[in-house]
Amino acid sequence: MADTTTSTTAEPVDPAEWTCPAPLRDHPVVVMGHGGGGALSAELVEHLFVPAYGNDTLAGLADSAALTLGGARLAFSTDSYVVRPLFFPGGSIGDLAVNGTVNDLAMSGARAAYLSCAFIIEEGTALPVVRRVAQAVGTAAAAAGVTVATGDTKVVDAGHGDGIFVNTAGIGLIPEGVDIRPQRAEPGDVVIVSGPVGQHGVAIMSVREGLEFGAEVCSDTAPLGGLVQAMLEATLDLHALRDPTRGGLGTALNEIAAASGTGVVLDERALPVPEAVSAACGFLGLDPLYVANEGRLVAFVPREHADAVLAAMRAHPQGAEAAVVGECVEDHPGMVVARTGFGGTRVVDLPLGEQLPRIC
Amino acid sequence: MADTTTSTTAEPVDPAEWTCPAPLRDHPVVVMGHGGGGALSAELVEHLFVPAYGNDTLAGLADSAALTLGGARLAFSTDSYVVRPLFFPGGSIGDLAVNGTVNDLAMSGARAAYLSCAFIIEEGTALPVVRRVAQAVGTAAAAAGVTVATGDTKVVDAGHGDGIFVNTAGIGLIPEGVDIRPQRAEPGDVVIVSGPVGQHGVAIMSVREGLEFGAEVCSDTAPLGGLVQAMLEATLDLHALRDPTRGGLGTALNEIAAASGTGVVLDERALPVPEAVSAACGFLGLDPLYVANEGRLVAFVPREHADAVLAAMRAHPQGAEAAVVGECVEDHPGMVVARTGFGGTRVVDLPLGEQLPRIC
Repeated sequence: MADTTTSTTAEPVDPAEWTCPAPLRDHPVVVMGHGGGGALSAELVEHLFVPAYGNDTLAGLADSAALTLGGARLAFSTDSYVVRPLFFPGGSIGDLAVNGTVNDLAMSGARAAYLSCAFIIEEGTALPVVRRVAQAVGTAAAAAGVTVATGDTKVVDAGHGDGIFVNTAGIGLIPEGVDIRPQRAEPGDVVIVSGPVGQHGVAIMSVREGLEFGAEVCSDTAPLGGLVQAMLEATLDLHALRDPTRGGLGTALNEIAAASGTGVVLDERALPVPEAVSAACGFLGLDPLYVANEGRLVAFVPREHADAVLAAMRAHPQGAEAAVVGECVEDHPGMVVARTGFGGTRVVDLPLGEQLPRIC
Repeated sequence: MADTTTSTTAEPVDPAEWTCPAPLRDHPVVVMGHGGGGALSAELVEHLFVPAYGNDTLAGLADSAALTLGGARLAFSTDSYVVRPLFFPGGSIGDLAVNGTVNDLAMSGARAAYLSCAFIIEEGTALPVVRRVAQAVGTAAAAAGVTVATGDTKVVDAGHGDGIFVNTAGIGLIPEGVDIRPQRAEPGDVVIVSGPVGQHGVAIMSVREGLEFGAEVCSDTAPLGGLVQAMLEATLDLHALRDPTRGGLGTALNEIAAASGTGVVLDERALPVPEAVSAACGFLGLDPLYVANEGRLVAFVPREHADAVLAAMRAHPQGAEAAVVGECVEDHPGMVVARTGFGGTRVVDLPLGEQLPRIC
């Protein structure tokens, strides 16, 4: 993972184009952090993909794009999954591939209707393992109420892949009167998380590194479409939603603060962090604020609706431990500040990359 | 590529599940042919993915799924691209990723409206190479009239990927009165191809193996949405369309014959095969019928509309060399038979895998 690593596929680069399209890097090669969902990832989107694609839809930077097609208001989203290992406490790459995309759609208020599912398989992978992943996709899709409508399979030579990579894309319908996007967060909004944070990241790390932290920590992977529908029954006027996956809650809050220009104050003492997650993070020097979740959301809700939304969340199985963790303020626009347990404050920065590579 | 290769990612397989979910294989591991679009790929879909996902939409086996959402009739499709090398005469992985999915939508009669685009990048890949691929995506999308609406970037460790893999998914609107699917082909239909076959496969092979066959052969990669719209202006009653990519025309014809139960007779002398493709295939022992195309389609058209459709195709740049190459018959249902140049006939089988791995 050193900066000097070069790809095994040596595509020739003309010296004339050997400029770095990403200002944060002085050496223009891709590093693991570019896939981490933090500042390096954001930079690729801003400086490389958006200019290359030349349209404004992508630049909205929501978890899913909101489109109109044939008179229908659709949410559309995609993610590839390269998590390692393929199976871990509480789930598998198949669960992530369904829930991750279903959740990205839910963050626009859409209920996922159809998924595509494409496998890139390394030659030599055991067919029963492929079947187990496919069955996990099927089971998770049934649980989320979404139909796998189309798919694809590619095989790459041994040594040029890593078991199984899965891509899903999803489409869903955005209900009438719903307009949820990062730009709508504003001073006065209450910040609510739907449950304990950090479980997915710690679960992956524990199985990958063979570590144990007292009780086994399971991934929180789960579909959030039902929870969001319950919240919309309390009010259609949700401002912003995000599922804090790669980069964790700290990254999600920063992205919404930056997109909306509001200041965010996080009350660290109110943040639900399970004891085993806290212990694991202490042991490994990680900050739970930046550890990935795969079944949680953070909501920015107008103050007058906050109680009703919180009650609706707590009445739903996916939101039983929902908690108010902060608020939006006029101060420090675009910046996230945490009130610490010791009465002080600290700036919650956008991380450069991800603490744990290949977490999803 | 030997059968005994095992994956570098050793996921444990419980002996109880060590049965082979794919009857064509006696050793239950994935081989390159599973990604070739032939019988091995079909078997994975039939015996592994369809049972795992448990719904009928996928089992339709069209290039794209036809869905109804919010009152709109949508086509939805996905493909991953793992072509090697990333750049080749006539195009790049970026062109394929756009045109391949745009074309799958067009095979339902839909005009592509929105694409997702997800990159899996190997650590160490040069950023200018990533940018060049992204720019190819942007340019191809503009040419096809489709908007890249949402994306994703993942990075995998050096040695666990291969430069860049790209996945696209696409959605488009199916026009009123159009019902194009493999099952609708029937005796009496005229079979038309839109242009010369075999160029993409030979272009990839020539650059990969450093071979030259007289004139340089360029990939035929192109978007086919406009051609299909022109054909629909001649008649809405097109029965079946397919873009003969992996597995070539021979595979596409077999899939339509099998899905519809009609017999197909192919007139080999009528098949447009460029001289350089013919020479390359002769040299390498390949059959042009099974070589991949990325900008051609085969159409099954009711006889009474065939002249009008052929004329519309020839008036369009992507169909200038369109030709009638066969017909559907009552005989040998579900089977494809070729009339050879010598006056005999031969069975055109579904190939087991793909002659050239990682062609798209």
